[in-house]
Amino acid sequence: MKTQALKGMRDLLPAEQSLRDYIQGQILETYRAAGFERISTPMLEDMENLDKSDGGDNLNLIFKVLKRGEKLDAALASGDPKELSDMGLRYDLTLPLSRYYAANRNSLPTPFKVIQTDRVFRAERPQKGRLREFVQCDIDILGDSSPNAEVELIDVTTRALLKIGFTGFTVNINDRRILRGMLESMGFAPETLDTVCVTFDKMDKIGAEGVRAELTEKQLPENAIAALADFVAAGDVTLDAVAARCADPAIANDLKYVLSTAGAIAAGRYQVAYCPSLVRGQGYYTGMVFEVTCPQFSGAVAGGGRYDNMVGKFIGQQVPAVGFSIGFERVCGILLEQGYQIPGAKAKLALLYQPSADFAAVLAKAEALRAEYNVTILPQGKKLGKQLGQLESAGFAGAAFADKEEIKLFSERA
Amino acid sequence: MKTQALKGMRDLLPAEQSLRDYIQGQILETYRAAGFERISTPMLEDMENLDKSDGGDNLNLIFKVLKRGEKLDAALASGDPKELSDMGLRYDLTLPLSRYYAANRNSLPTPFKVIQTDRVFRAERPQKGRLREFVQCDIDILGDSSPNAEVELIDVTTRALLKIGFTGFTVNINDRRILRGMLESMGFAPETLDTVCVTFDKMDKIGAEGVRAELTEKQLPENAIAALADFVAAGDVTLDAVAARCADPAIANDLKYVLSTAGAIAAGRYQVAYCPSLVRGQGYYTGMVFEVTCPQFSGAVAGGGRYDNMVGKFIGQQVPAVGFSIGFERVCGILLEQGYQIPGAKAKLALLYQPSADFAAVLAKAEALRAEYNVTILPQGKKLGKQLGQLESAGFAGAAFADKEEIKLFSERA
Repeated sequence: MKTQALKGMRDLLPAEQSLRDYIQGQILETYRAAGFERISTPMLEDMENLDKSDGGDNLNLIFKVLKRGEKLDAALASGDPKELSDMGLRYDLTLPLSRYYAANRNSLPTPFKVIQTDRVFRAERPQKGRLREFVQCDIDILGDSSPNAEVELIDVTTRALLKIGFTGFTVNINDRRILRGMLESMGFAPETLDTVCVTFDKMDKIGAEGVRAELTEKQLPENAIAALADFVAAGDVTLDAVAARCADPAIANDLKYVLSTAGAIAAGRYQVAYCPSLVRGQGYYTGMVFEVTCPQFSGAVAGGGRYDNMVGKFIGQQVPAVGFSIGFERVCGILLEQGYQIPGAKAKLALLYQPSADFAAVLAKAEALRAEYNVTILPQGKKLGKQLGQLESAGFAGAAFADKEEIKLFSERA
Repeated sequence: MKTQALKGMRDLLPAEQSLRDYIQGQILETYRAAGFERISTPMLEDMENLDKSDGGDNLNLIFKVLKRGEKLDAALASGDPKELSDMGLRYDLTLPLSRYYAANRNSLPTPFKVIQTDRVFRAERPQKGRLREFVQCDIDILGDSSPNAEVELIDVTTRALLKIGFTGFTVNINDRRILRGMLESMGFAPETLDTVCVTFDKMDKIGAEGVRAELTEKQLPENAIAALADFVAAGDVTLDAVAARCADPAIANDLKYVLSTAGAIAAGRYQVAYCPSLVRGQGYYTGMVFEVTCPQFSGAVAGGGRYDNMVGKFIGQQVPAVGFSIGFERVCGILLEQGYQIPGAKAKLALLYQPSADFAAVLAKAEALRAEYNVTILPQGKKLGKQLGQLESAGFAGAAFADKEEIKLFSERA
């Protein structure tokens, strides 16, 4: 039998799990204090829902669950591989939330301010170093079309990041419609905008020349590529300059409002910036998108955006929705690397007992000691000195003994 | 698109999720105070591991994940349906823990006292009213062969149950080897003992005559059935009477030790009883088994046992192991039915604002109020009286206003 966890998935050792539980607790406390309420949904969703969810590239990364019994026999007989599966593991928490809201909206408040923190699955190629199972930590506001919903999500998410010790980060904001409006005005056809955005979003990494080369390789119209390259090369890609090429001024005004209000709230604790090339990968975003970057780490530690059409796919009636997701794996990875210590935990004490001890009395003594310590009951080893050394290395503060009053604290050693 | 959760799986509304989070927190706090450490493992396991895991009937209930890409093509070409899947969703937390211990034992203490609380999956027939996705809440001790490990698991698990408000329950204990020894001595062949045990375990429900009828139907030897029926009909199935028919007296002595020590610790807070017919469904149990029953509810609220051979399947070397699992869904269902209230949470306050408000100032006011309240920011409705009524129904303690100093507490209404 195979002892290692499946590739791209992880066994968590106790120290890492404790850190994760603490960090998640801090984030949840921040979210709950702001009146957001936690829900949960199944790990599995109907395949048809997943297939129609506008998840972009993630739709190619779904783990599908095999049908069972007669349904499997019928699927095999049909000869169509697509028939083999009727449900799949969710690739994010947004599609399940949209379905959930559609199913339960009569029992939910308006606006609905909701927390989700749970596992999602993507069949990434393991060689990319990406996880195939990971935790996302999301807040969403459903039923509020005002840009104040964006501002509040930015406020609450950044407070959670500050609370767990992140500093010096930037909240980058854009509106997809402004970017798309500009690209259309330059001569890119609407159906090519997704692929143009994917390339344009790499501007930070590959530069203006790289963007031009990649768009040419994608065989997009030369004059449109030239217009975009000229615009970028002119430098100073301001919101006003981009917005001037977008038809609806209300969109730019909302974006300016969010930038200035979120900037005022930041009060210097973090930066808020317009990022003209930001698009985010998911196909379901309809308006503003945002992500949090830290200068010390490549990639984003949080990201989100508005997805006003998703719930409507289920109920045929549009429900405004916006969400912000903390990249929990990434955040925990960074904190673990930095040697983050959990504050305020009770000291660990070992209670050692001999084989001959009255075990009911040992348990009672442990319970009494738990008023002050986190107590682990352990059989006393034959070499006490060696055992105490191991306990100290393992993070115990000291040892008590079933047959003695004395408590030996390692910090008090002579 | 389909709005309902998949059958046998559940969407959790905010009130239920809050209760579950609180209950889980209380259980975890009890476990951690006893020096148990939480870990986690992936939801998915290698199919081969799952197939060889002695999981009894659960092996027929595994959700299998379809292979992808070239591997799927090859599997389809092979024409063998078993080839279609290389991993599956775990059906319990014991197999993953055994694999985890085998993979990580050099980084883990001995004995290893471990907590797991997470989702598991079983493709149950939905008409049975069973869930296909549910949470288990387990503690295990690995590397301790002494019956004190059983005693400690019983102590810690019962303290968790008492802490969340359960009373009047019974911890039923048995040792599979004693039961099997007796059945062998009566003339049942070793390879038929599993099926005999399944029937014998129903003695409470179907009575001695029912047991005789079912064993006859299973075409087991008449003389063995008669011996068992005579033994049961004689009444007073004591541990001594059963143990007298079992070859190894040490097994009965360990069981007596656990019964008396756990009984002493119970100190009248709950019952500890010998249950001669208890076997538990999992094939991997090797010695003592236990479960917690409440007179008010049919079925068990917790169960477990010793599984000394499971880790050995991975590393070829036996590691003693024993575990106890709280049926989290069942426990939460019972508490929810009883109208359980979460103690000591901050009162909920709505902070209402007009569209014209300075939203940065609204957020700042909310943050100041959070010292005392759990504050939800909401747009003020056109009909304030109606909105306040709705907030009161939804469990809010009162409302504050972005443009007024006053806080309106519903309890203070004239």
